[in-house]
Amino acid sequence: MAYYRTHQCGKLSKTEIGQEVTLCGWVQRRRDLGGVIFIDFRDRSGLVQIVMNPEYNQEAHRIGDRVRNEYVLKVKGNIVERSAETVNPKISTGEIEVHISDVEILNEAKNPPFQIEDQVEVDENIRLKYRYLDLRRPAMQQSIILRHKVSKAFRDFLDENDFLEIETPMLTKSTPEGARDYLVPSRVHPGEFFALPQSPQLFKQLLMVSGYERYFQIVRCFRDEDLRADRQPEFTQVDIETSFLTMEELLPLMEKMVAQVCEQSIGLKVEAPFQRLTYREAIDRYGSDKPDLRFGMELTDVSDIAAACGFKVFSGAVERGGQVKGINVKGCGHFSRKDVDDLMGFAARYGAKGLAWIAYQDGEIRGPIARFFTKEEMAQFKERFAVSEGDLLLFVADTAKVVADTLGALRTKFGKELGLIDSSVFKFAWVVDFPLVEYDEDQKRYVALHHPFTMPVEEDLELFDTDPGQIRAQAYDLVLNGFEVGGGSMRIYKRDIQEKMFKALGFSQEEATDKFGFLLDAFEYGTPPHGGIALGLDRFVMLLAGRSNLREVIAFPKTASAADPMTDAPGEVDEKQLDELSISLQLPEEVTK
Amino acid sequence: MAYYRTHQCGKLSKTEIGQEVTLCGWVQRRRDLGGVIFIDFRDRSGLVQIVMNPEYNQEAHRIGDRVRNEYVLKVKGNIVERSAETVNPKISTGEIEVHISDVEILNEAKNPPFQIEDQVEVDENIRLKYRYLDLRRPAMQQSIILRHKVSKAFRDFLDENDFLEIETPMLTKSTPEGARDYLVPSRVHPGEFFALPQSPQLFKQLLMVSGYERYFQIVRCFRDEDLRADRQPEFTQVDIETSFLTMEELLPLMEKMVAQVCEQSIGLKVEAPFQRLTYREAIDRYGSDKPDLRFGMELTDVSDIAAACGFKVFSGAVERGGQVKGINVKGCGHFSRKDVDDLMGFAARYGAKGLAWIAYQDGEIRGPIARFFTKEEMAQFKERFAVSEGDLLLFVADTAKVVADTLGALRTKFGKELGLIDSSVFKFAWVVDFPLVEYDEDQKRYVALHHPFTMPVEEDLELFDTDPGQIRAQAYDLVLNGFEVGGGSMRIYKRDIQEKMFKALGFSQEEATDKFGFLLDAFEYGTPPHGGIALGLDRFVMLLAGRSNLREVIAFPKTASAADPMTDAPGEVDEKQLDELSISLQLPEEVTK
Repeated sequence: MAYYRTHQCGKLSKTEIGQEVTLCGWVQRRRDLGGVIFIDFRDRSGLVQIVMNPEYNQEAHRIGDRVRNEYVLKVKGNIVERSAETVNPKISTGEIEVHISDVEILNEAKNPPFQIEDQVEVDENIRLKYRYLDLRRPAMQQSIILRHKVSKAFRDFLDENDFLEIETPMLTKSTPEGARDYLVPSRVHPGEFFALPQSPQLFKQLLMVSGYERYFQIVRCFRDEDLRADRQPEFTQVDIETSFLTMEELLPLMEKMVAQVCEQSIGLKVEAPFQRLTYREAIDRYGSDKPDLRFGMELTDVSDIAAACGFKVFSGAVERGGQVKGINVKGCGHFSRKDVDDLMGFAARYGAKGLAWIAYQDGEIRGPIARFFTKEEMAQFKERFAVSEGDLLLFVADTAKVVADTLGALRTKFGKELGLIDSSVFKFAWVVDFPLVEYDEDQKRYVALHHPFTMPVEEDLELFDTDPGQIRAQAYDLVLNGFEVGGGSMRIYKRDIQEKMFKALGFSQEEATDKFGFLLDAFEYGTPPHGGIALGLDRFVMLLAGRSNLREVIAFPKTASAADPMTDAPGEVDEKQLDELSISLQLPEEVTK
Repeated sequence: MAYYRTHQCGKLSKTEIGQEVTLCGWVQRRRDLGGVIFIDFRDRSGLVQIVMNPEYNQEAHRIGDRVRNEYVLKVKGNIVERSAETVNPKISTGEIEVHISDVEILNEAKNPPFQIEDQVEVDENIRLKYRYLDLRRPAMQQSIILRHKVSKAFRDFLDENDFLEIETPMLTKSTPEGARDYLVPSRVHPGEFFALPQSPQLFKQLLMVSGYERYFQIVRCFRDEDLRADRQPEFTQVDIETSFLTMEELLPLMEKMVAQVCEQSIGLKVEAPFQRLTYREAIDRYGSDKPDLRFGMELTDVSDIAAACGFKVFSGAVERGGQVKGINVKGCGHFSRKDVDDLMGFAARYGAKGLAWIAYQDGEIRGPIARFFTKEEMAQFKERFAVSEGDLLLFVADTAKVVADTLGALRTKFGKELGLIDSSVFKFAWVVDFPLVEYDEDQKRYVALHHPFTMPVEEDLELFDTDPGQIRAQAYDLVLNGFEVGGGSMRIYKRDIQEKMFKALGFSQEEATDKFGFLLDAFEYGTPPHGGIALGLDRFVMLLAGRSNLREVIAFPKTASAADPMTDAPGEVDEKQLDELSISLQLPEEVTK
């Protein structure tokens, strides 16, 4: 066979009228109208209507009669203009059709287990088991094409700006800090293991030591954690590192990159510079370090009023060092006690033990707590929350963390449910001035908020010896519409500071040397000041595509239990394979056969 | 600090004369000439000479006095034209120098363990242990930059030609065919394992089932095999798959791609179409399925002469179904018996039990076998090998495989040693018409020469039932200068043919369904004709860079024992990590502690 096709279905137009074309594709839909067969014929480029009429060709019509949805055909025919009343304005090729003179069935198709359309509700496990069919749906195809465009746009921008894409190893060493590693037993070195990288962090820093100055990589990373809707065991990162750039030079460059990618991939104009929020401000105003800035409903602090009030739950919380804050849910003044009680289950997930409320509706003020406050206090609430008729105030009195988490989550929930969010808006912002470390009550030690290689703000360096919890990091997160889409920092590039950091995290000298000795060594051979960022490609594409699940933008994702129903991975392996790797199974009792 | 630098060292020129600039970089070399300090100052862009003279600035000179090689500095100074006699034509910035008024030591550097220069001979393990220093060498930097350019050029071409880059999973299922898998224990599914992909073969085929038509991916692949100089446990592939393209359309498209990549990366013009050789022809003429076509010295078959001659070693080989072939090593007629004996060790590696020779030198004919041949036979040799004065004929009489392997290797050896190869020439060729399967004496069954998804030549399909060994594959290898740089095929896309193939390979129905059921299923839902190719990026870049070792074009490669001396991977892990994965160590006795 010299060729399969001369044209693509979706690219045909009136220009080709009168031409004979050969097409290949799938039967999207087949109708028989009075002995004439009309097929919506599909390839990647789109649809065209092909017509098998015994008047054009008897044999072709005979074969056409046999075909069913999703059959793969090669057809030959003439491009003909449709009559005015049969023009289909919904498809790009709607002004023409192809009168078929020759059909070859390249492959048959069984009835698919679900209809290949966007609107169809199908159990996700079935979709994943037959992913090769699910990927035929227009919405999936658009996601995958968008993902390609986004990656290409990142690469083009970075290349234009002198960044080199440099590949780093996938078979690396397991390190203690961070999430759980995926391990890979070594056959050549019995008893030893590689780890799949959680990120190329150390390698990219070493590339800065090597003088590459501008590195990037679009790279697969791995975390063996329990999954959520916006997590996958393997995910893709746009990983970037630079030397000799200050944070004030790097962030605008990254803004330019993000803007160019948005424009080239979905035609979105993004305004720079991006808003900047300190970590403190984000938590205070939005109860989140990745606030959705597309709407208001900010958290309002009333701890001062609460401290002196007669309502013990409020004053007690402040006494114990906590906070009392609230949000004004506009237009929900009609909420009943039951409505608010229903919210309690939601609030409890974030640790709140109670949810206080005051409703302003029909000139009335309702809510069981209202009676505890003086007229002046009620006036202060009214002013501080800019209350108007029909509003609902929700309060949480607890530790600062519970207050922020609960009100932040309620704010997001109401933002969505009340339609306060314009989904066509993309609000990028930087969150900066993160704490370097935070105290982990479980481990009874400080842990790095970003990672152990983050550079402290210069003037806070002396706090290592006195109060590490107060050190600010030269770190920044890129947030978009309530998601963290990127995070980075300036890095430590001097051995003494890195050692102080390891010490603050409770590493023994030996541990530090054992795990990161090569990095500490590298710092002594002329390491430049450097810093970078990593963007989550999956999440970024998900947001640009307007989807809410990572599996909608990954061709072959894993389920929430980190499995692939299609290939049935993971699976059992031969005893011989384990022997070669010097490992054996040690199954928990209930699994042992 | 608002900024680190205003300019890059290697980009300075006479245009900047009179300007004050701020630079950052490394001390490449420092000389003190009569109290004035001259430093070759380096960043990624190149070198510039900076001068610290107490007359310009005392403090800067004082600091300059302290710096040593590989220190990282931030310097400020004025660009000054050099006097004619001090111009350095060897560097791009040789017409100017920078008179320094301010120096800041950003980081110090110990004496590196080896000199950071290209010509220095350093033990490779030391180079890999200090890879971050080794990567500073100009040759390594050029390789890494070239690799970036090559990847970019591939991506640009493929994007321009409607290919979508689609990411496929790294955590996949272990399959029986092919090389040894790297396994990844699953924590969530005790006793089960993922495998790292040897290639995304099945996923890219499924993407064709999904209708993506043109897929590519530059993707990491893994094979747990014992290593050679041109193998790494993880390697990178330019992976391509298309639908509705015949082989006669795909190969020219790939030629265009390769030509564009060569041109854009190293400015090399490559002529298309590439030469095509059948597998048979390649073996017959060059003793290799990846022949170096930059020189002649083809293998000449003399089995017909040998069969009838009086030399038992020759006639016996032909009688036993073998061959007698030879090469004419021009200009080596002076070889002594000892010289040829020395070649025997080399030949033996390829299975040869002997090496017969005839030398033509100074009008004499030498060689112990000459006396076994008649005058006519000697004349025939002379004619067939186009012998002239000073030639050396080398013969091997053995099975076809040993003859090809031995003479092919000798040909390559002499090609290099006699300087017959023009290293500036890049000779691409396609090798086609491979056998689909070959019989494996160890396993007593047929194994796929490429892989089990390769489509047979249509007219050979009926041989599945009679003589599978005779089936030709619709497969093609891309060879370059004696290396296989790519390989691919048209794929099976019908369930019945795929089942025949599995059967020919000795898979039981159950095995086939267990391992590849999802593929067989997929074939029943409308699979288009498809085919593709995979190019080895590491090897391709290695050849374009003119290097002979893959480690020269991989930033962080593994040693021949699949380890990384820098990070010390693989390494031991905590017992807790193994417990979570439901595995335990089962060390061979000599390793148990």
